[in-house]
Amino acid sequence: MIRFECDYAEGAHPLIMQALVETNMEQTPGYSTDEYCGKAREYIKKACGSEDISVEFMVGGTQANATVISACLRPHQGVLCPISAHINTHETGAIEACGHKVLTLASDDGKVKVEQLEAAWNEHVNDANREHVVQPGMVFISQPTEIGTLYSLKELTEISEFCRKSGLIFYIDGARLGYALGAPENDASLKDITKLTDVFYIGGTKVGALFGEAVVIPNKEIQKDFRYHMKQHGGLMAKGRLLGIQFKTLFEDSLYYDISKQAVAYALRIKEAFAKCNVQMLVDSPTNQQFPILHKSQMEKLAEKYSFTFWERIDENYSCVRFCISWAAKEEQIQALEKDILDICK
Amino acid sequence: MIRFECDYAEGAHPLIMQALVETNMEQTPGYSTDEYCGKAREYIKKACGSEDISVEFMVGGTQANATVISACLRPHQGVLCPISAHINTHETGAIEACGHKVLTLASDDGKVKVEQLEAAWNEHVNDANREHVVQPGMVFISQPTEIGTLYSLKELTEISEFCRKSGLIFYIDGARLGYALGAPENDASLKDITKLTDVFYIGGTKVGALFGEAVVIPNKEIQKDFRYHMKQHGGLMAKGRLLGIQFKTLFEDSLYYDISKQAVAYALRIKEAFAKCNVQMLVDSPTNQQFPILHKSQMEKLAEKYSFTFWERIDENYSCVRFCISWAAKEEQIQALEKDILDICK
Amino acid sequence: MIRFECDYAEGAHPLIMQALVETNMEQTPGYSTDEYCGKAREYIKKACGSEDISVEFMVGGTQANATVISACLRPHQGVLCPISAHINTHETGAIEACGHKVLTLASDDGKVKVEQLEAAWNEHVNDANREHVVQPGMVFISQPTEIGTLYSLKELTEISEFCRKSGLIFYIDGARLGYALGAPENDASLKDITKLTDVFYIGGTKVGALFGEAVVIPNKEIQKDFRYHMKQHGGLMAKGRLLGIQFKTLFEDSLYYDISKQAVAYALRIKEAFAKCNVQMLVDSPTNQQFPILHKSQMEKLAEKYSFTFWERIDENYSCVRFCISWAAKEEQIQALEKDILDICK
Amino acid sequence: MIRFECDYAEGAHPLIMQALVETNMEQTPGYSTDEYCGKAREYIKKACGSEDISVEFMVGGTQANATVISACLRPHQGVLCPISAHINTHETGAIEACGHKVLTLASDDGKVKVEQLEAAWNEHVNDANREHVVQPGMVFISQPTEIGTLYSLKELTEISEFCRKSGLIFYIDGARLGYALGAPENDASLKDITKLTDVFYIGGTKVGALFGEAVVIPNKEIQKDFRYHMKQHGGLMAKGRLLGIQFKTLFEDSLYYDISKQAVAYALRIKEAFAKCNVQMLVDSPTNQQFPILHKSQMEKLAEKYSFTFWERIDENYSCVRFCISWAAKEEQIQALEKDILDICK
Repeated sequence: MIRFECDYAEGAHPLIMQALVETNMEQTPGYSTDEYCGKAREYIKKACGSEDISVEFMVGGTQANATVISACLRPHQGVLCPISAHINTHETGAIEACGHKVLTLASDDGKVKVEQLEAAWNEHVNDANREHVVQPGMVFISQPTEIGTLYSLKELTEISEFCRKSGLIFYIDGARLGYALGAPENDASLKDITKLTDVFYIGGTKVGALFGEAVVIPNKEIQKDFRYHMKQHGGLMAKGRLLGIQFKTLFEDSLYYDISKQAVAYALRIKEAFAKCNVQMLVDSPTNQQFPILHKSQMEKLAEKYSFTFWERIDENYSCVRFCISWAAKEEQIQALEKDILDICK
Repeated sequence: MIRFECDYAEGAHPLIMQALVETNMEQTPGYSTDEYCGKAREYIKKACGSEDISVEFMVGGTQANATVISACLRPHQGVLCPISAHINTHETGAIEACGHKVLTLASDDGKVKVEQLEAAWNEHVNDANREHVVQPGMVFISQPTEIGTLYSLKELTEISEFCRKSGLIFYIDGARLGYALGAPENDASLKDITKLTDVFYIGGTKVGALFGEAVVIPNKEIQKDFRYHMKQHGGLMAKGRLLGIQFKTLFEDSLYYDISKQAVAYALRIKEAFAKCNVQMLVDSPTNQQFPILHKSQMEKLAEKYSFTFWERIDENYSCVRFCISWAAKEEQIQALEKDILDICK
Repeated sequence: MIRFECDYAEGAHPLIMQALVETNMEQTPGYSTDEYCGKAREYIKKACGSEDISVEFMVGGTQANATVISACLRPHQGVLCPISAHINTHETGAIEACGHKVLTLASDDGKVKVEQLEAAWNEHVNDANREHVVQPGMVFISQPTEIGTLYSLKELTEISEFCRKSGLIFYIDGARLGYALGAPENDASLKDITKLTDVFYIGGTKVGALFGEAVVIPNKEIQKDFRYHMKQHGGLMAKGRLLGIQFKTLFEDSLYYDISKQAVAYALRIKEAFAKCNVQMLVDSPTNQQFPILHKSQMEKLAEKYSFTFWERIDENYSCVRFCISWAAKEEQIQALEKDILDICK
Repeated sequence: MIRFECDYAEGAHPLIMQALVETNMEQTPGYSTDEYCGKAREYIKKACGSEDISVEFMVGGTQANATVISACLRPHQGVLCPISAHINTHETGAIEACGHKVLTLASDDGKVKVEQLEAAWNEHVNDANREHVVQPGMVFISQPTEIGTLYSLKELTEISEFCRKSGLIFYIDGARLGYALGAPENDASLKDITKLTDVFYIGGTKVGALFGEAVVIPNKEIQKDFRYHMKQHGGLMAKGRLLGIQFKTLFEDSLYYDISKQAVAYALRIKEAFAKCNVQMLVDSPTNQQFPILHKSQMEKLAEKYSFTFWERIDENYSCVRFCISWAAKEEQIQALEKDILDICK
C-alpha cells in the first residue's frame, strides 16, 4: 500500500533526524530558550524579512490555532472564516472551548472574498443591537486552503487592508504553507505574508519536520505575553530545542522550499494524469493536494494499491477523493500512480 | 557546565532515537491508530496488570493535566490538591482556563493527607450554602511530589478509599513516576496505582523519552470520548506513532525501570554526600530530586561547574536549591559532583 | 407612539405588582428557599403534571440558556439547533463562552425537522474521525420559534424519541411559551412538554412577569447540583422570593394562560387585518408575533403611530417587519392598529 | 423571628416600590436605553463627580463581578484579592469559569495591604519563568469588606497608585458600598473612589433596591464594548428600566445615603451593647455588619428571637456570629435586640 492519504504518514526529512540524533545528548536549557531555537528564529526572521517579529515554536496546528486565537481576541469577539476552515470543522470545538464563536462565511473554493468580510463587518457595525451579537475580531484563512487553492498576493493585500481599516486581526494558518510557497502559480512570498498579517504560522508537521509549527507574530500587541498563552495551552515544550533544531534545519538553507517544491511538482503530474483521462477535479488546485471526482469502479481499483481520503459524495456513482502528495513522496511512487491513473481512468 | 537543573536537559535515550530513525520513512496512519501505538498500549496494559484500561499518548504534562481534568469535572467542580501542586503553581492557570478552581490544601512535604481531604470534603457537604461554593470533584496528587517525596501504598490506598466513598475522581500526575518506581523505599507498584486511581499518567518527557506522557485510564466513565478531549486540547498528535514508538521502547523490556533506578541511585549518592557534610535538606527525598540548603558561598562555588535550580530563600545566608538527577546522568558527572560537594561543603 | 416592537415594553401584570407590594417588607430567607418559591414550585409541578421534576427560577433567558446548556453538556459536546435559534444569533456568544459550539441546521420556518437531526447525528457517528469533530450532545428548540411558528405534539414527540434513542438532551427554550399554550392551533400541553423533554423553561419576562423564567427539569441527572450552576452563572437571585411571588401569581389560578390567550387572539386579529389587505406574511404564525411584508410607503405610514421591529429586507421596495402583541396589549390599541392597517395597506 | 442574618431579607424601600408601580404600564425601549436609566446615569455621574464615566446596571453581584473581571483581563491573567474575597469563597467559581485564577493574599481583617500587593507583583515580574505562572492583571477589594471593615482614603490611594504604576486594573466590589459611605469613620467619598479606581459597582440589592448593582467605569478602555460582555453574561436586562427606576430613586435625592447612614447607626448601637457586656468582636467593624464572639449559651438564647449567621467556630464553647443590620431595620427591632443583648450577655 502506498499512502497518499495525508502529509503526515512518514516521520521527518532525514537531515532533521540526523540533526536530532547528533545533538541528542547535549544539555540545553528548556522551553525554547536554547541556542538552536535562537538560530531557528534568526533564520526565520531573515526569511520573513523582518527583525521586529516574534517567532515561537509549537508542536501542532490545533494547539497553535487555539493559542493564537485565544491570545488575540477578547471574550465577546469571534473569528470570521470560510465555512471549510479547519477551526470550524476538525478541531473538536477548540476555539469555542476558549470561549469564541467561529463566524462562518460561505465558500466553494475554500477561500473567503474580501467582499464577504466587508459585508459581515458592515452588517455587524450597522446593527442597532450589535451588543447582542458576537463581534468579529479576527479574520482567519489558510494558505493554501483546505482544498489546496491559493490566495493571490492581490487577494491577501485586499484582506489585509480591510482588516487594518476595520481593526480586525489578520491570521493565516500555514499548516501547509510550504506547498503554497512551492507552487509555480504562487505570487505571495513569506515576506509579503509577514507584511500583510498580524500573525501566521509556518507549518512543519506536514512539510518535512517530525512535528512543529513556527508561529510568526509581526503585530507588537500580540507579541506581548504570548509565551504565557503558549504555556497555558500546554504548548511550551519542555525540550523546546527539538523544535529549534528542526526549524533551524528547514530554514538554514533552502530545505523547506526545496521539499515543498518537489511535492507540488509531483502533485501537478498527478493532476495532469487525471486531466489526460478527462477526470473532473473538485477544484483547480495548484498545490500538493488534488481532488479528483472518481467513479466508484475507479476508486475501487486505485484503492487496491493506494490509500487516499474520501472527501465527499457527488452522486450515486461518483465521489470526490483526495490525493495528498507530501514532501516524502518518491519518484517511483509518483510514476506508479501516474501509470495506474492512465490505465484505470482512461 | 554540567546541568542538574532539570530532567529535560538532554534528548532521549539512545534506544529511542534508534527506533525513531529506523522507522522514520515508514508510512503509518495518524493520530495514534498505528501498530506502534498498539504495541505500546499492549506493553503498558501488561505493566499495569489490566486489560480493561485505556492508554492514550500526549506530548506534555500541562496538556495531559488540562485534558484529564477538563474531561473529568463538571463546570461547578474543582480539584483538591496540595498547595505545591504543579497545576496550582506552574501551568499558567491552565486548569482555571478550562473553568475549574484549584482547591489548595496546606502541605510542608509536597503531600496531602487523607485527613485534610476528608476535612475539606466534610466542610463542603455540611455547608448549608454549599451551592455558593465550588464542589470538590477530584483529588490531584503527584507521585513523586514536586519536592521528591513519595506516598506509601498505605497512603495511596487511604486516599483511594476516601475518593471512592465520596464520589471523587482520584488522579495521579506521574511526570516523574519512573523515579518513584525506581526508589528503594517505594512500595506502590504500577499495578497498585492502576487499581487505586481513576486516571494517572506515566511520564516520558522526564524519564528517557524525547517527549510524551502515557495517560492510563482505569475508570470506564473517563475512557468514554476521551480522545475528543485530547483533540480539543490540541493533544492528538498527527504523527501519533512518534509517541507509540517511544513508549513501546520504554516498556518492551524494562528500560523505563532500569534508567529510573539508575538515576535514583545516583541521586541518593548526592544526598549521601551532602549528609556527610551535615548539609541540611529541605525534605528527606528518596527520589531523583535533592533539595540541600546551602550557604551562599557554597552555592557560588558549586555554580561554577554545575547548574542547579534556586528553590527558595531560607534566610539572609542560606537558600534551598534543587539538584535534579535524570536518566541521562553519567557516572563521571556524579563522581565529580560528589567530590566537589565534599570539598566545598565540608 | 403605541409600541408593538417587543413583549417587554411594559412592566408586569397588575396582580403581580400588587403581590410584590403586599409582601415587600416581609422578611424571608434568600436564594429561592422561601415559602413563595415553595408555592410557585407546587403550582408549576401541578401544571406540569409531575412531582418528580425540579423547578428553579432565573432572572432572564440568556442566563437560563447558558446555565442549562453548561450544566448539561461535557466539554466536547455542542448543541444542535435551527440557524435562527436565539442562542446562535442574539446572545453574544454566551454558549461559546461556556465552551460549547452551536451546531446550526438550515431552517426556513424557525423549526428544525427530526430528519435533519437524524442526518446530523448519523453523519457524526459514522465519521471515522469523529473525535476531530464536536459531538452533538443536545437538541435546542424554541416553542414558539423566533418567528412565531409552533411545533405540533407529533413533531415534539418525534424529536423526543430521536433524542432518547440517541442519548441527546432535549431542551426547549420557552421564552414565549405562554403564547404557544394560548394559541388555538396548539396541541402540545405543558404536561406533554414535561413528558417529552429533559429540561425546558417557562418564560415570565415576556408573559406578564416583571422578569423571570422558571426552569423545569424532568431529567434527574440534570436536577443534580443544578443550583451550583445557577450560582456560578450569577443566576441565584439573593431575593429569590421576587421570582417565587411572580410565578405563584401566574400559576396560582390561570393567569399565565389567560393573558397569553388574550394576546394571541389580538395578534390573530392583526394577522386577519393584513390578510384582508392581501399583505403577504413571512410565515404563517399562529402566535403573538406577526411578520408582514410591507412596502416602504406602508412601513412609513404605520411607523408614524406604531413602533415595530425591522426584521429583514426582502427587496428594493419591500421589507419584513415584526408586530409583537404582548399580554399588555389593550383592546383600543388593537382596534386602532386594525383600522390603520386597513386604511394604509388596502 | 426578627431576621438579622443578611441585608436582603426584605424587598425594596417603599419609595422604590412606589416608583415601580407608578411606571408599570408605561412602554419603554429595552436594555437600559430608556429615559429612567438615562436619569439614573445622570444622577450617578453627578454623585461620582465625573461626566467621563460609564454607568451600567446589572441585576446581581456575582454577575457583575464575573462580567467586569472577564471584560478586563486577558486569558493568562488572574485577580489579586484577600483570601476572604467573595469571588474566592462564595461565587461557585464564577471567575474561574471565565478562565481566570483568583490569586489570594492572606488577610485577618478582610483587607489587603499595598505591601502585599507589591510583594506579589514583584515576585511575579522577577520570576525568570514567569510565563509559567498566572500574571496578576487586577486588584479586587470590597468596600466595606466581607467582615465590615473599611479602607481609608489613604489606603485606597496607595493601592490605586500601585495599580497605575504596575499596569493593574483596580476594581472595588461595592455590594455594601452605601454602608461604607454611611459610616462615621469613613473618609473615602464616591468621588474619591471614582478617581482612584478603574471600575467599581454601587450595590443596590443590599442597600434599599429590590435588586440591582450600578457598575461605574472610569477607565475608557473598559468602557469600550462593555455592554457586549453584559449581554454575554446574561446581564443585559430586557426591562432595563426596572434598574433605572430604582437607581434614579436612590440617587435623585439622598435616599441611598440616608438609609445607609441609619443602618450603620443602628449597627453601632448593637456594637455598643455587646461592648457593654464585654463581648469580644472578631474585628472592629465600623459598618452595618457586627461579628460578636458568643458563648454557645448566649447564641442559643439570642437565637430564640433573632436569626443571625454562624460565621466561624472559635473554640469548644465560643463561636463568632454575624448580625447584619440592613436599611430595612426598624427602631423597635434594634431596641429589642439591644435589650436582649444586655440581658443575655451581661
